[in-house]
Amino acid sequence: MAPAPHPLQMLSVQETETARGIVLATHPDHVIEFRQVDLKEPVKKDLVQYLQLEHAGQLTEKSTRPPRMAKCHYDIIAADRTIEYYEAIIDLEQGKMVENKAVGKEFSPSLTLGEFDTLIEVCEASSVFKAAIEELKLPSHMEVIIEPWPYGSLEVGDEPGRYFQGLVYARDTRNGNNPDSNFYSFPIPLIPVVDYHKRELVRIERLATGGKGDGLKAAARDSTKHPLAHCTTAEYVPELIQGGVRKDLKELSVIQPDGPSFKVSDGSLVEWQKWRFRVSFTAREGVIIHDVQYDNRDVFYRLSISEMTVPYADPRAPFHRKQAFDFGEGGAGMCANNLSLGCDCLGAIKYFDAVTVERDGKVKVQPNVICLHEQDNGIGWKHTNWRTNRAVVTRNRELVVQFILTLANYEYVFAYKFNLSGEVDIEVRATGIVSCVNIDAGKVSEYGNVVNPGVLAQNHQHIFAVRIDPAIDGHANTVIQEESVPEPMNAKTNPMGNFYRVVQTPITRSQWADAAPLSSRIFKIVNPSKLNPISMKPVGYKLVPPPTQLLLADRRSLQAKRALYAQHHVWVTKYKEGELWAAGPYPFQSQGEVGGVQDMVDRGDNVENEDVVVWSVFGLTHNPRVEDWPVMPVEIHQIQLKPADFFTANPSIDVPSSKNLASKLVANGSCCEGKGLTLNGANGINGSTNGVVH
Amino acid sequence: MAPAPHPLQMLSVQETETARGIVLATHPDHVIEFRQVDLKEPVKKDLVQYLQLEHAGQLTEKSTRPPRMAKCHYDIIAADRTIEYYEAIIDLEQGKMVENKAVGKEFSPSLTLGEFDTLIEVCEASSVFKAAIEELKLPSHMEVIIEPWPYGSLEVGDEPGRYFQGLVYARDTRNGNNPDSNFYSFPIPLIPVVDYHKRELVRIERLATGGKGDGLKAAARDSTKHPLAHCTTAEYVPELIQGGVRKDLKELSVIQPDGPSFKVSDGSLVEWQKWRFRVSFTAREGVIIHDVQYDNRDVFYRLSISEMTVPYADPRAPFHRKQAFDFGEGGAGMCANNLSLGCDCLGAIKYFDAVTVERDGKVKVQPNVICLHEQDNGIGWKHTNWRTNRAVVTRNRELVVQFILTLANYEYVFAYKFNLSGEVDIEVRATGIVSCVNIDAGKVSEYGNVVNPGVLAQNHQHIFAVRIDPAIDGHANTVIQEESVPEPMNAKTNPMGNFYRVVQTPITRSQWADAAPLSSRIFKIVNPSKLNPISMKPVGYKLVPPPTQLLLADRRSLQAKRALYAQHHVWVTKYKEGELWAAGPYPFQSQGEVGGVQDMVDRGDNVENEDVVVWSVFGLTHNPRVEDWPVMPVEIHQIQLKPADFFTANPSIDVPSSKNLASKLVANGSCCEGKGLTLNGANGINGSTNGVVH
Repeated sequence: MAPAPHPLQMLSVQETETARGIVLATHPDHVIEFRQVDLKEPVKKDLVQYLQLEHAGQLTEKSTRPPRMAKCHYDIIAADRTIEYYEAIIDLEQGKMVENKAVGKEFSPSLTLGEFDTLIEVCEASSVFKAAIEELKLPSHMEVIIEPWPYGSLEVGDEPGRYFQGLVYARDTRNGNNPDSNFYSFPIPLIPVVDYHKRELVRIERLATGGKGDGLKAAARDSTKHPLAHCTTAEYVPELIQGGVRKDLKELSVIQPDGPSFKVSDGSLVEWQKWRFRVSFTAREGVIIHDVQYDNRDVFYRLSISEMTVPYADPRAPFHRKQAFDFGEGGAGMCANNLSLGCDCLGAIKYFDAVTVERDGKVKVQPNVICLHEQDNGIGWKHTNWRTNRAVVTRNRELVVQFILTLANYEYVFAYKFNLSGEVDIEVRATGIVSCVNIDAGKVSEYGNVVNPGVLAQNHQHIFAVRIDPAIDGHANTVIQEESVPEPMNAKTNPMGNFYRVVQTPITRSQWADAAPLSSRIFKIVNPSKLNPISMKPVGYKLVPPPTQLLLADRRSLQAKRALYAQHHVWVTKYKEGELWAAGPYPFQSQGEVGGVQDMVDRGDNVENEDVVVWSVFGLTHNPRVEDWPVMPVEIHQIQLKPADFFTANPSIDVPSSKNLASKLVANGSCCEGKGLTLNGANGINGSTNGVVH
Repeated sequence: MAPAPHPLQMLSVQETETARGIVLATHPDHVIEFRQVDLKEPVKKDLVQYLQLEHAGQLTEKSTRPPRMAKCHYDIIAADRTIEYYEAIIDLEQGKMVENKAVGKEFSPSLTLGEFDTLIEVCEASSVFKAAIEELKLPSHMEVIIEPWPYGSLEVGDEPGRYFQGLVYARDTRNGNNPDSNFYSFPIPLIPVVDYHKRELVRIERLATGGKGDGLKAAARDSTKHPLAHCTTAEYVPELIQGGVRKDLKELSVIQPDGPSFKVSDGSLVEWQKWRFRVSFTAREGVIIHDVQYDNRDVFYRLSISEMTVPYADPRAPFHRKQAFDFGEGGAGMCANNLSLGCDCLGAIKYFDAVTVERDGKVKVQPNVICLHEQDNGIGWKHTNWRTNRAVVTRNRELVVQFILTLANYEYVFAYKFNLSGEVDIEVRATGIVSCVNIDAGKVSEYGNVVNPGVLAQNHQHIFAVRIDPAIDGHANTVIQEESVPEPMNAKTNPMGNFYRVVQTPITRSQWADAAPLSSRIFKIVNPSKLNPISMKPVGYKLVPPPTQLLLADRRSLQAKRALYAQHHVWVTKYKEGELWAAGPYPFQSQGEVGGVQDMVDRGDNVENEDVVVWSVFGLTHNPRVEDWPVMPVEIHQIQLKPADFFTANPSIDVPSSKNLASKLVANGSCCEGKGLTLNGANGINGSTNGVVH
């Protein structure tokens, strides 16, 4: 018999099928549709106990193992097609459902890609939709494309129900009918709204296409022309780019002749340069990093991206309903790219698959959704003794766990980066195609920027929440806010005026806090019971909260009420089982954040020397540039988790000096001619000294 | 005859020798010592005229060429060893001095490395210094090391003069008398002060070594022990590291089989992926980037690092005098590393030499002070059409111009990075050994952190000023401050509360401004006379000012008076010939900033549609961690200059999709076994499609 999977190992195909079977068997007389089936992580106290044995090398056959569980999200479909939404927990070893909860009608489950398909089918079958398109008198080479979106919030006048909206574009079929021709440059000023339960088109919104001075209502369009008459192509697939792709960018390859420095074992365990952690993946969160240790010391229990909201700022109805919650509504894991199809990394790459379940219960392998590789990030540390001219320099090697989402027009590249200096960075790169709508010829708008003729890219924000469940040498931690503050000149403490004071304020009750970069405000997560033997300060890691703009929407708006989390940079809460969602578990079609960080904070828990959770909120206000079109260059944001008196010295001090013999000397752009290049440094990675490269 | 060098070409050895000869010939009866000899850049209007012809391909033999000039900084040494400091301009073609200015005694020239040598010689020869060391009763295996520093400001009680101070350490000779053993872990609590003119030790400061609660004065030390008795080694050179360097970090190489994509010609001209610029180097600034064009359009006239100050916050005298100005006092170019000795890059590397002049007039080649190479920076842009599953992804290639300074204990890695998306980033990595002083055994301090037994790393800041001389499609530019601001919910403009307003404020008079990240404040440098044909907005580049903490010292302190520039994030001034220095031309031993950005701004010049200069100030408040010891991991900061409606689309849209055939598939850490890895994407860099890698 194969050994039992590790408690953090993602569900296998077989386990997922078992869980599905148990759900179906529970409801023999009903139509069931599945939303998600994922590992139900063991409760923390059980898992911690197990991990402690594992870390100590004391696991035996007889050790208590947390039961292997699955969490199933599914619907019972009624005759009128309305859904009853359930969340069940299945004990896979006992083969039975141990919990089953009908989620109240006040909450809506997140969307599935199957629901998106339904939206498209309903529109395409709708004579009303067809008539609305025909009204526009588009030329016959324009093929209509519907881009499904969540609906936003229910509003006054909406019947209760489950809604989706569609942005509508047209694809110009004249260039060989290429299915990847960029249809976003032809925005059709219609938004159909569909009731998913009824499978009905509820209405079609006619969109304002005016510009500055036209106000909130649609201005009169030139009715002699169809609304795409002034739009032009803007292609990004290489074979359609005008003039073709450039030819003068020469190959740059990353070679690891001895293979990678990392090791993956036991399905999910990654070991690299004293780091040790496990990787898993869920439909909602994408990659999760568990049980992070450095040199056998606990650092983090769990790292994840909890939520992201993307509110749009165009005040013209119905654009205020463009507000996506890409994790809670969309499902980051569900929308993850197959990375080997995108060729997204250089070097020696390890891919991980995930298992997913389709609407009809079909269990599928979702291949290559996570990639793992090493990368070089420039100089790691350097010092030259100017007396002897001896330079010692190391490279900053990183281990990267990456996943990439495509959400309709847009993509996000998420990376957890571990480096040689004991640091974990969580990076997001925003790219893809900016969301856009039609604007009349020759107009400009204060609601966005014209990025292609007839194309208005609307102003918007992206606000992320990263969930950090720390374990700084154990689970009883305290978060300390630290600032560097000026001290007025005074004879007693600051006679020459050069002193500044470092002020620490421990956070004792659950609360939010904001970034204050002009005070160098940082948050140290420390273990108050363990002092660094050198500095005599508690061992810790620090978070420098990125001081990015918070949610701009008026506090009374639905956008703001649905995303309370996006209104502060840092939230400190006490760990509670299952509390993983910054904007609450059910943002889909929500009218306000329920069960999110604001509610957690409102409990007023003691968080001093406790099992705390830190939520880091950051983002970007994105007023599009023309350069963001047709596909935008990555906009990079990251948070850094850095050791702060956690170690007794720079943990990368024993990294060998770089002396890379593969590097080449260039004489004025022609490689490798001229004199040899002598690279100094002892104990090089390649094991030889004073290599000469020609 | 060889063609005349380009007007921006650095001086050759021969030109430098010519300049030196003319200076010497001007003063046949005096002792002359040299400080710097550099190219005197042509005045802007002449150079612009020349460059315009060059850009248009209209240069001929008969074109007016700005005269080739050198700027010489030198001293006339009087009999009493006081110096008269001169700045002369030499016309190299006419072979004559065209300007010679004796700089007033109220200003002090920047230091030279020769002066540092003098400090050490004077101390070593001083019986007073010897006696002070003997008093400490250090064991005989401790060799005293003096680390020269600028003096800071003259203070009440100081005779007029030119001073230096020395930090004092000891090297433990017991480990094979290795000259690179880290002496900073043995700080001796003395600072000798030397009068450079008199070649005399003025006094020795006895340093306080107390801790928290001991106040500003030295507390009684345990006189039965010498002050290094509790100090221990902390090595960074590989052969001295305890346990040796790690062996499990496998080789990662960057290979460019077809050579680099860049071309260097005409001595200083760099061309890469539609970018075109010139590189030069001076003793004060290090690398300068000139005449930056993209696709034959002007973008920047000149980019440089203007200044950096490093004030220390320990209030105990004389530590308030620890305030370095590493460009204006130290000379970034003078302290630049020979990069081939440090093996600082991967890939295909082009090095540039500079020419330097020593104190005695000896002209020397300073080899490999600049390096140029390409690097990969992850995904550049990506989009997947989820309908077809077609992913198009490009890599973010960068061209890096790098130089590295060593200033006593500390290093800075500066890089100008040009990327495929039309962006220029100016990055600094702070590394090296933190400045430290002695602290009594068992004590901690509010003035810094104990990073090794007996070693207090003092709190300090690093504040940089980057000078940006823009040329956005020409030299008449305007700087616009732009913010995204909430709009209260109201029926007329914001009925649903989701709208926010983008507010632009042109800067009309020279002024400072601060970062305001919570308003997404950015600064757009635009050409108001040229509209982007797509967005109908003026073409521009934007600066997102890093919202880092400004100078903390009390405004009445000498530290603050000497660094007015460090008190705001952005300064906008009108171009004036020779105004290159944020803290003024003469920060050495200054008592206040004279001729710096504050004075420039005070002129109240019109800066709208003018030849403007933008100064970006940013930095880090560095309260050292134990992890920063003995050599600190790089702390990375950068400013980004991004096109903002400068182009009519993403300029990297024609970059070929990456499909790197050198990448390998990893099965659980053993490279290259298992199934092949298929990498999709058309028109790959390698020219083939659907490559399969085994």
